[in-house]
Amino acid sequence: MPEYKAPVRDMRFLAEDVLDMQAHYQTLPNGEEATPDLVDAIISEGAKFAENVLAPLNRSGDEEGCHWLDGEVITPKGFKAAYQQYVAGGWQSLSHPPEYGGQGLPMSLGVMISEMAGTANWSWGMYPGLTLGAMNTLFLHGTEAQKQTWLMRMTSGEWSGTMCLTEPQCGTDLGQVKTRAIPNGDETYSLSGTKIFISAGEHDLTENIVHIVLARLPDAPEGTRGISLFIVPKFKVNPDGSLGERNGVSCGSLEHKMGIKASATCVMNFDEAEGYLIGPENKGLQCMFTFMNTARIGTGIQGLASAELAYQGALPYARERLSMRSLSGTKQPDNVADSLIVHPDVRRMLLTMKAFAEGGRAMLYDAAKLADRMITAETESERNRLDDELGMLTPILKGFLTEAGLESANLGVQVYGGHGYIREHGMEQIIRDARISTLYEGTTGIQSLDLLGRKVLLSKGKDLNRLAGQILKYCKSVLTDDSVPRLKVLPFVGKVSALTLRWQYLSYRLAFRAARNRDAVGSASVDYLMFSGYVVMAYYWLQMLVAAQRKLMEATSEVAFYKAKVQTAEFYFSRILPRAETHAKTMLACPRTLTRMKEESFAFL
Amino acid sequence: MPEYKAPVRDMRFLAEDVLDMQAHYQTLPNGEEATPDLVDAIISEGAKFAENVLAPLNRSGDEEGCHWLDGEVITPKGFKAAYQQYVAGGWQSLSHPPEYGGQGLPMSLGVMISEMAGTANWSWGMYPGLTLGAMNTLFLHGTEAQKQTWLMRMTSGEWSGTMCLTEPQCGTDLGQVKTRAIPNGDETYSLSGTKIFISAGEHDLTENIVHIVLARLPDAPEGTRGISLFIVPKFKVNPDGSLGERNGVSCGSLEHKMGIKASATCVMNFDEAEGYLIGPENKGLQCMFTFMNTARIGTGIQGLASAELAYQGALPYARERLSMRSLSGTKQPDNVADSLIVHPDVRRMLLTMKAFAEGGRAMLYDAAKLADRMITAETESERNRLDDELGMLTPILKGFLTEAGLESANLGVQVYGGHGYIREHGMEQIIRDARISTLYEGTTGIQSLDLLGRKVLLSKGKDLNRLAGQILKYCKSVLTDDSVPRLKVLPFVGKVSALTLRWQYLSYRLAFRAARNRDAVGSASVDYLMFSGYVVMAYYWLQMLVAAQRKLMEATSEVAFYKAKVQTAEFYFSRILPRAETHAKTMLACPRTLTRMKEESFAFL
Repeated sequence: MPEYKAPVRDMRFLAEDVLDMQAHYQTLPNGEEATPDLVDAIISEGAKFAENVLAPLNRSGDEEGCHWLDGEVITPKGFKAAYQQYVAGGWQSLSHPPEYGGQGLPMSLGVMISEMAGTANWSWGMYPGLTLGAMNTLFLHGTEAQKQTWLMRMTSGEWSGTMCLTEPQCGTDLGQVKTRAIPNGDETYSLSGTKIFISAGEHDLTENIVHIVLARLPDAPEGTRGISLFIVPKFKVNPDGSLGERNGVSCGSLEHKMGIKASATCVMNFDEAEGYLIGPENKGLQCMFTFMNTARIGTGIQGLASAELAYQGALPYARERLSMRSLSGTKQPDNVADSLIVHPDVRRMLLTMKAFAEGGRAMLYDAAKLADRMITAETESERNRLDDELGMLTPILKGFLTEAGLESANLGVQVYGGHGYIREHGMEQIIRDARISTLYEGTTGIQSLDLLGRKVLLSKGKDLNRLAGQILKYCKSVLTDDSVPRLKVLPFVGKVSALTLRWQYLSYRLAFRAARNRDAVGSASVDYLMFSGYVVMAYYWLQMLVAAQRKLMEATSEVAFYKAKVQTAEFYFSRILPRAETHAKTMLACPRTLTRMKEESFAFL
Repeated sequence: MPEYKAPVRDMRFLAEDVLDMQAHYQTLPNGEEATPDLVDAIISEGAKFAENVLAPLNRSGDEEGCHWLDGEVITPKGFKAAYQQYVAGGWQSLSHPPEYGGQGLPMSLGVMISEMAGTANWSWGMYPGLTLGAMNTLFLHGTEAQKQTWLMRMTSGEWSGTMCLTEPQCGTDLGQVKTRAIPNGDETYSLSGTKIFISAGEHDLTENIVHIVLARLPDAPEGTRGISLFIVPKFKVNPDGSLGERNGVSCGSLEHKMGIKASATCVMNFDEAEGYLIGPENKGLQCMFTFMNTARIGTGIQGLASAELAYQGALPYARERLSMRSLSGTKQPDNVADSLIVHPDVRRMLLTMKAFAEGGRAMLYDAAKLADRMITAETESERNRLDDELGMLTPILKGFLTEAGLESANLGVQVYGGHGYIREHGMEQIIRDARISTLYEGTTGIQSLDLLGRKVLLSKGKDLNRLAGQILKYCKSVLTDDSVPRLKVLPFVGKVSALTLRWQYLSYRLAFRAARNRDAVGSASVDYLMFSGYVVMAYYWLQMLVAAQRKLMEATSEVAFYKAKVQTAEFYFSRILPRAETHAKTMLACPRTLTRMKEESFAFL
């Protein structure tokens, strides 16, 4: 069974040797407080909380699940106490501004905490995670009064938040939203409708729940242009801030799911519930995007979490379980058999999980730097530029990393053989929990359309070319960097450069095709997304390889650690990156191989 | 929710247009009874049973699971009645010889029945499936008296069978088996030990259970050379055939598993249980191989079943669920949105499942022809040759098709989006049930070592070259076949020929490497297995393409059906087969990228 240990050494490697987080913090208006000592203390306290409080509740939470009784939801044993400890530790307020009760630390530090909490116990992490999304939405789009009323109490952790988008007839296609909001003549609205798949929609962790809800005003335009965003609290709030009467929103039932069973997934019924408009009328979807982008990067963290936990579960088993002899000769003559880890194919599986976890971590931490800068940007144009940069990466982080996480979760079970299928080992739970990650917050298909259709083609390659330019510039810089053993990194620099140029070339090819046939986008998009993911991860593995080679050249005292980084990088380049080749080829297959089959010809039963 | 319909039209296509099963039956000593009318009747009755009796119990069986009480196991509601109906229908005895109560029909017909039953309800199918394996073992290795006592009652379905190999300390590495068998001085032995993961080890479907058990005689050599095979019944049998006293074997508990919850997975405790030796002393493992090969091909069927059921579940949802508009213009103006199936990426997922299901079916049915011929072979050398031919295919059928099935199961959920994660839709169950298929009966890693290490390298490529020769000969024959529109198949013939030659080339490369470094085998094996799978499936898709083009040239009345075959074949070649490229590249990566990392360097926590 996986016993989570926060990968603090690896986090420190990224922060110090690869991404230079201290230098980054110092460029931020709110960064001066993030001193090395404080950051270390935060990470080590976060690690303790994740390891000692959250991890032990992961399997029990899965076995027990959430229970619904007359509209109330009971979370599994220990969840509430853990939540109270989390709030008392000030974790919920870490990255929000002091004027709203936060500690004003960089968002990127929050990502590290989210990673540790989420790897230890993804289901539990959903509750503060959704609250964070609601906080971000209110922070960016709420009025000052709304922030005082609602945001402050979420920052403090007293209240939690949700994101109410999906309805029975639509998830992806939010233009079909039917929930109605009728103005009451004062500042309030009366909301009626049904929302489904509402994570943390009802639970016993907090005294109030702040729902952020998409709904239509009367006479709103059809489709996505007629959707507005509302605050709908579980309990109304009196002018003095105390809780008033129960609002007209209630949990009709819980979904029975494959995994994340300790996360309450609710059907929420709005029956003339009192709500308050956030942002301008009919601009709800734009406002909600804030929420969705947070959630998408958060879901990318789930990909990393799945890979890390699967690896941490599989590694000790591979070391301890004795099976067969190494084909190249007995390795452990004193045992009845050699341990699994001597077998190359078991190592292939372990290293795949390891490479995805460490590569994903680097991608996410670097993206979090962009988010830090975007939040604190001083000009609108600077903010927009950073938003575009992050927007280019978001579908890759969400789409690619969750696919890699799901693959890793499956490999974790595979290392265990038949024992992986047994619940008590805790490995199959990782698959069940990970399985949602390629579905919610936009499926992999939706991420791929966002990437290729919107981010690449619609911007005429602007954001792609900026990212590609950055990668090529980095490659060039390595070649003239005397602190790096050039011959040892040269082949990898070459691979990353070549693939980056190919990425641009493939994008142009697809742009030409799409100009003639719009179906060329959807025919290529998932292969394009996966290709992009492998290339971007290669860029980060190159950076890690270079950083590790630099340390080895400096005669570090931690030779084993840095050698392992080099070896993992080389594994990634030789055994994972070749997959990009297939995606490159497949994305160029004729769209008609997908589109020409008649709908009625899909089956003759 | 998937509502299983047996794909009878597709089965008929294979039987009539591709594999010419009638001509095949007529070459078998036991084939004359398999007249077209009888075969049709059997398939249509099997389809009805699978659709009407087994399919409705699939989800309820998953929800209810098996229950253990004081050593007894209760199967889910309806399972026993279905089993009785199955036995009454004579299905258990279909392919066994009349002298042991069977109907003497070809084994390949049994595979079709197993496919339908297993797709409808894999958990239920495990009970007769394990019995079939026990029957095959007894038929090949039992004495005449043993066959009269034990085989006859399994053929009739009165009793069921199991396969007791795995112990807590070993699954794959059966040389570690510890269960002891002490001779009692008469023809009986006294067996003691613990077996785990015993499917159908205890249940309420039959009055007796015949366990086939691996155990060690006193003073047996260590390792795999000291293992013998025994019959251990749940109830002893009196000389008159009536049931005697309870034997010393009992079910200690049931495993809690990720899926196939309605299949009882038992811990079996043998406590001086009375047993009878099958086959020669210390040759148990060789005898057990009969069982394992049946089981491996049976598990290959699970890959097909997962792909088929996922497809059948996803297709109606893709047709009905309305989401977004087609990028190439509105397709269904009367609906609020277009249905999922208009989107190319959804079609990619559907066609992937379809191509795997139909391709897998062709591979399995053709392999079943080999099994038919092997069972009825008239000379030892003929039997051995066919055994080798089938042995080359077995790890591909098991290893590759189960991986394809698992991928398909995941795609089925993916088509549903978030709804796929909800239990009531029945799609996530397909993943949970399919997940075992790459683990039991030898993991994918073990299959890959069997393929590359044993079947290819140990035989110096004999069986590979025979298969490659057969494929190339077929390719050549197509080029001179006037009943086929040559230009329409030429590119595909070219691809299959080229990949087959590449397969041989890669095998030689790996053979040279392995001669220097045995770890080269395990470093390449899974990629080699997957490459082999894609190539072999391409060979079958070529045969289906050719057969369909022939029918189209003959001006068939079923143009839509045959066109869909052609289009699915072209999809396979353009969008699935390119994956072989990555596997070809990756299998040649240096083994040291896997082997050189020190065991202690895998983590620095």
